[in-house]
Amino acid sequence: MSSFKAIGLAAALLASSASAQTFQRLGACPTLGCVFPPDQADFLAGQFFDIRLEVHAPKNGSEAIGLPPDEKFTFTLAKGDEEPKPVTDFFGIEDAEVESWTFSWFEDLFARDAKQSTVVDVRAKAYRRLALYEPGEYTATLNYNNGSSTKATWLVRDLAEERKAKNIILFIGDGMTTNMITAARLIGHKSVNGKYQSKMQMDKFPVLGHQMTHSIDSFITDSANSASALYSGHKSSVNCLGVYADSSKSPFDDPKVETIAEIFHRLTGGHVGIVSTAFLADATPAGLTAHTRSRNEYGHVVDTFLNGVTNYTWTKWDGPDVLFGGGAEYFYSPALGGISYKNRTYYDEFAKRGYQVLQNRTSLMSAPNDERALGIFAVNNMAKWLDRNVYRDNLNQSLSPAGDKKPALDQPGLKDMTLKAIDILAERSGDKGWFLMSEAASIDKMMHVLDYDRALGELLELDDTIKATVNKLNETDTLKETLILVTADHGHGFDVMGSVDQRYLAAQNTDRKKRDAIGTYQNSGQSQYQNTGNLTYTDSNFPKTWDPRYTLFQGLMADPDRRENWAVHKDGPRKPAVEAEEDDYVVNPKDGKDGILLNGTLPVENDQGVHSLTDVPVFAMGPCQELFGGVYNSVDIFFSMAECFGLGRGTPPAETY
Amino acid sequence: MSSFKAIGLAAALLASSASAQTFQRLGACPTLGCVFPPDQADFLAGQFFDIRLEVHAPKNGSEAIGLPPDEKFTFTLAKGDEEPKPVTDFFGIEDAEVESWTFSWFEDLFARDAKQSTVVDVRAKAYRRLALYEPGEYTATLNYNNGSSTKATWLVRDLAEERKAKNIILFIGDGMTTNMITAARLIGHKSVNGKYQSKMQMDKFPVLGHQMTHSIDSFITDSANSASALYSGHKSSVNCLGVYADSSKSPFDDPKVETIAEIFHRLTGGHVGIVSTAFLADATPAGLTAHTRSRNEYGHVVDTFLNGVTNYTWTKWDGPDVLFGGGAEYFYSPALGGISYKNRTYYDEFAKRGYQVLQNRTSLMSAPNDERALGIFAVNNMAKWLDRNVYRDNLNQSLSPAGDKKPALDQPGLKDMTLKAIDILAERSGDKGWFLMSEAASIDKMMHVLDYDRALGELLELDDTIKATVNKLNETDTLKETLILVTADHGHGFDVMGSVDQRYLAAQNTDRKKRDAIGTYQNSGQSQYQNTGNLTYTDSNFPKTWDPRYTLFQGLMADPDRRENWAVHKDGPRKPAVEAEEDDYVVNPKDGKDGILLNGTLPVENDQGVHSLTDVPVFAMGPCQELFGGVYNSVDIFFSMAECFGLGRGTPPAETY
Repeated sequence: MSSFKAIGLAAALLASSASAQTFQRLGACPTLGCVFPPDQADFLAGQFFDIRLEVHAPKNGSEAIGLPPDEKFTFTLAKGDEEPKPVTDFFGIEDAEVESWTFSWFEDLFARDAKQSTVVDVRAKAYRRLALYEPGEYTATLNYNNGSSTKATWLVRDLAEERKAKNIILFIGDGMTTNMITAARLIGHKSVNGKYQSKMQMDKFPVLGHQMTHSIDSFITDSANSASALYSGHKSSVNCLGVYADSSKSPFDDPKVETIAEIFHRLTGGHVGIVSTAFLADATPAGLTAHTRSRNEYGHVVDTFLNGVTNYTWTKWDGPDVLFGGGAEYFYSPALGGISYKNRTYYDEFAKRGYQVLQNRTSLMSAPNDERALGIFAVNNMAKWLDRNVYRDNLNQSLSPAGDKKPALDQPGLKDMTLKAIDILAERSGDKGWFLMSEAASIDKMMHVLDYDRALGELLELDDTIKATVNKLNETDTLKETLILVTADHGHGFDVMGSVDQRYLAAQNTDRKKRDAIGTYQNSGQSQYQNTGNLTYTDSNFPKTWDPRYTLFQGLMADPDRRENWAVHKDGPRKPAVEAEEDDYVVNPKDGKDGILLNGTLPVENDQGVHSLTDVPVFAMGPCQELFGGVYNSVDIFFSMAECFGLGRGTPPAETY
Repeated sequence: MSSFKAIGLAAALLASSASAQTFQRLGACPTLGCVFPPDQADFLAGQFFDIRLEVHAPKNGSEAIGLPPDEKFTFTLAKGDEEPKPVTDFFGIEDAEVESWTFSWFEDLFARDAKQSTVVDVRAKAYRRLALYEPGEYTATLNYNNGSSTKATWLVRDLAEERKAKNIILFIGDGMTTNMITAARLIGHKSVNGKYQSKMQMDKFPVLGHQMTHSIDSFITDSANSASALYSGHKSSVNCLGVYADSSKSPFDDPKVETIAEIFHRLTGGHVGIVSTAFLADATPAGLTAHTRSRNEYGHVVDTFLNGVTNYTWTKWDGPDVLFGGGAEYFYSPALGGISYKNRTYYDEFAKRGYQVLQNRTSLMSAPNDERALGIFAVNNMAKWLDRNVYRDNLNQSLSPAGDKKPALDQPGLKDMTLKAIDILAERSGDKGWFLMSEAASIDKMMHVLDYDRALGELLELDDTIKATVNKLNETDTLKETLILVTADHGHGFDVMGSVDQRYLAAQNTDRKKRDAIGTYQNSGQSQYQNTGNLTYTDSNFPKTWDPRYTLFQGLMADPDRRENWAVHKDGPRKPAVEAEEDDYVVNPKDGKDGILLNGTLPVENDQGVHSLTDVPVFAMGPCQELFGGVYNSVDIFFSMAECFGLGRGTPPAETY
C-alpha cells in the first residue's frame, strides 16, 4: 500500500482542490483534450470498458487559452485503415450527455507553497460498458477546439481462445523485491560453505520473469494502481482501482476496465477466491472487484466484493467463493464501532447470501468445503507471522473480528487461509475451475515502517504457503492443471549490506564509533540466524533465532528520521518516527535503543518509507509458464493469465454467467 | 570491486597478522582441521585443482587447546561407497612436505580494539594440479589430533561432453542489479502512458535467471571472489582470485582451481578475449588467469595474462587473443612511473609475443583482425561514457596510456572494444571457437562513489554494446552458434524512489524544508530525462538531458557521510567524502551544492559505498539458454558454460593445447 501519509496528502488535496495532482493537470492527458482509455492502451478482446472524454480550458496558469471549453467536441473510432466512425455508430449506442465541472491543481511546489492553484473548466462525456472484439489496432480521435485533436492508438491483442489452465493461483508478495527474497533466504535457510542446504519454494520455480511496475503517469506506483494493472491489463494512476482517473469530483464515475476475476466469472462461470493478510478493503484485494479512483473508499470496496458495481450496469457479479483476511471494522455493526458502507452489518449481508462466516483459525480449519466462506480474523491488518509465532504477547490488543474489543488470539496465517481457500474452490467449482489471489500484504506494510525482520518473516511465510500449495495440488493431482504465479506489485528500495555486532554497537558511546559495529565484505561473516538459536516451528524454513549477536545490516533507501539499531522489535511492529508538530515527524525516542540517529530524506510529513522503482520478479509454474519468462510490463501478466484461461472473445458471447 | 577502503583494511590486517580475518579463524574451516577444496565443493570432471590441508593449534583465545598442531595428520579420499584411500594412492602422487607457520587473528571487534590477537600454530601440506574425472560424490577426510576428523563431501558433476556452442560471450555489468537496470531504462528510454517505446536489449533476451552472489565464508562478496565463482565453479573468500584462501603468509601458494578460460583453451584450443573498462589488473578481468589470495597483486595479475601461473606447474597458457582495457601503469616502463611486475615493460613483453599494441580508439578501429591485440587506453580506469560523450572537459587529465602524462582523449568505449574483440576472435579462432568476457566495470565504480548518473550511463553503454553485439553476430551469421550471457558479480543496495525538483531544492534554506523537493508516488511524475533536452548520440538510447529540473530521487543504502543534491556531477566522478583525519571521513564540502547533509551508516573509515546481498539477474540467449532460467548459485554459471562448451572430461584427455 501507499504510505498512510501519502494517502493523507492525497485526501487533503482532493478536499481542497477537486482532484488536483501536483505537476500534472491530469495524468495521461498532456494536451487539453483527454481520451480514456488513453493512447497505448491494450485490451483483451471482449473486455468491458468505459470511455471518458474531457476537454479542458485552464482559466489561469501556464496553459490558459482565454476560451471556454469546447462543448461540441466529437469522437471517432477507426479499426486499422478503415474510415473513422462516430463512436455512437461504431458501437451502436446513444450519444452521452455533456457534463461540466471545474477542478484545480498546482503547477509545481512553488505554486503549492503560494497557494496559487490553476483552475480548469471541463466539458466531458462518458460511454459505458463497451467492448472491442476484433483483434488489431484502433485509432480513437477526439476533435475539439476547432481543429485540435487528441489521437489514441488502442490495441486489441490477438490471443487464442483455447483454455490451457483449469485454475490459476496468483500469489502477490506486496512490495516484495528480489533483494528481499535474497535476505529472507539468508535468514531462513542454512548455508554451508556457500551452498544453501535447502531451497526457497520460489527458487524452485522453472520460469522467472521481471515486470515493470510503474504507473501510467508517474514512475512510482502505489498498490491500487499496480493491482489494477495486474488484474485488468490497464495501467492507471496512483490510488485508482479498476478505473482510469478522470478529473471529476466523484470517485465513482471514472472510466472502468474489467478485471480478470470479473471476466473469468462472467465468461466461464469459474469460481473466485480472495485471500489477504491485510484488511480486505485494502488495495490489492480490492482491485479484483472495486472500480473507483479512490482506494480510500473502503466501505464501498467491501460492498463490491459482494455486490460488484451497482451505480452503473457492469459485469454481473455475485461474490467470490472465498474472502479471507482482516479489516473487521468494515464488516461489523456500527453499534460496535464498525465503519461499514451505509451502516450495514456485512457479516449479515454475506450470511444472507449463503456465506458461512468464520472469525478464527479453529472455525476456519473445520469449516465445510461445500459452502461459500467469509473469513474475517481481525480488526485492521492481521497479526504478523513474527507475532503469531515468536512474540505472541503482542497479540494482546483489542482486535477481535467480532468487534467486542477482545484480543484476536486465534488468527490463521496465510498458509491456513490459502489451503482452505483451495479446498473450498476445488470442491465448489467442479469442472469450471477457479482463480485465487493470495496476498502476503505485510511484507509491504512492515517495510513501510522499516520493520525489516517482520517483513522478512512475512516473506518466509509466503514462501512456506507456496510450498504447501504446491504439495496440496500435487497430492490432489491438480498441480498440472493449475498455473501458479508468484509476483509483487511494486518494490521498496531495500537491501542487506553486511552485519551488525549488537554487543559492540551497544557498548560504544558515540554514533561515529557505533558505526564500527558494522561489518562489510569479509566482515559480514555468515548468517547467524541459522547458526545460533533453537527456535523451531511446524513450518521448517524460518530463523532459529531472531536476535543473534550479529544481525543484518539492512535498510531502506528512503526514510523518515529514525534511530537504527538493526535489532528485532520484540514489542510489536516498529514505529520509527513520531509527530513533533502537525505534519512534522521526528525520531521516535522510544525506538532503536543504542542505535544511530539518522536524518531522513523524505519530506518531513512522512512517518514511514515509500515505494521504489525496481522491476519485481515473477515466478511461474504450470500450464502457460512459458508466457512469464523474460522482462515485460506489469499489464502483460493480465494478458498472459487471460490467454492461459482462454478468455479472449472474438465475438460477443452467447452465454454469460 | 570492493571499496578501496575495504582493500586497505584487509591489507593492513594482512600486514599486521598474517592472514587474519575478523570473526573467523579461517573461512570455510570452522574446525581445527582444514580441507581445501572444502565440504560442498563441486567440480567439473577433469578440472585441475590443488588440495591444501591445515591443522590449527590456537595458542590462546577461545579455541586454545594447549597442544602443538598435529604433524602426523592423514588425508584420504573415497569415491562413493568405496574404501577410503590415502591421497597419495588415490592420485598416484608423492607425499607432500609438512609446512609450518603461524598466523594471528582477532576474535571480534572488542579484541581488535584491545589489540588482543589470537595466535594459531599451523602444520600444512599441499598437493597440486590434480583432477577428478569420474562424476559422482567423493568423501575427503582429514584425520588429525588423534581422533578428530574433518570430512568434506565433493561432487564431480555429471555433464555431457557434447559441445553445443561454438562461442560464448559473457557480459559482466560489475555491481549491476535489477534495480539499476530499471533506473537506466527510465532515463534512457521514452515511455508514453506507461508503455516504453523502445526496449533495452537485455529486456529482449528470452531467458532470465537470478544468481546468488555470496562468498563461501561471508554473505557479502567482493568482485575477485565472485568473478572466481563465475569462472571456476568454486566460491571462495573476499579478495581471492582463482584460489581458496589458506592461512599462509604468501598470497601465491593458496590452492588453485582452474578457470573456464584455462580449461577451454587447454582442452579445445579455443581462443580467449578479455575486455574491461577497468584497469585490467582489476578483479573481474584478473579472475580469468590469476591465482592469488590477494587481488591487490596487480603487477602479478598482468603477468598471468601473458604467462599464466609460473610458480607452479599448471595449465599451459600463452595469452589471450585480445586484452583491451585500462591500467597502463602496469604496462609501461618504470622510468615513466610504471609500477609493473619485476619492473618489466609489458608493452614490450606482449609485443615480443606477437601482440599488436594499441593505445587509442583510432588505432583500435583500424587494427588488423588476424593478429593478437593488446589495447591499453588509459592509466587507471577508463573514462566514463558520460565524460566521453557529454562532459568531455573531464578527459583533460594526465592519463595517456603511453605514460607521457598527456590526456587520454581518444579512448574507445565498451562497444568499440567488444566489437573489435569479436572481429579478432572470429578471424583467428577458425573452427575452434572463442570465449569473450566483456566487463562494464564502472557501473560498480561509480556506484561506489554514489555517482548514480555515471553508473547508469555505464549501464546504458553496456546495453548498447550488447545490442551492437547481437547485430554483429546476426550479420555474420554466427548468432545461432554463440551463447550470450549478461550478468553481474554482485549488487549495490540501490533504488529510485521518486523525483527531486532541483529548482525547489536550491531555493529552500533548511535541510528539513529541502526535503519537500522530493516527490514520491503520484508526485514522482514522469521521467524528464527523455521528455526534455536535445542531446543526441550515434548510440540511440541515452538520456536527452542529464540535468532536467526534475531529477531522480535515487541512492544507495549504505553510505559514508555525504551531501545529496541528486544532480548530475558535471565536473567528473563524484567524491562524496574527504578524510578529516586518518581513517575518519566526513562530507566533502565541495560536493552536493544546495543539497541535504546526511550522516552515513558505514564505519567512518569508509569514503564510499559498499556491496550488497541481492541476487543479480542473468540474461541468456543462444545455444543452452535454457540452462540459465530460474534461481541458482553463482557457481552454476561456470558449470552451465562448461556444459555448453562440452568441457567435462571423464578420462584424462589425450591432447591438450
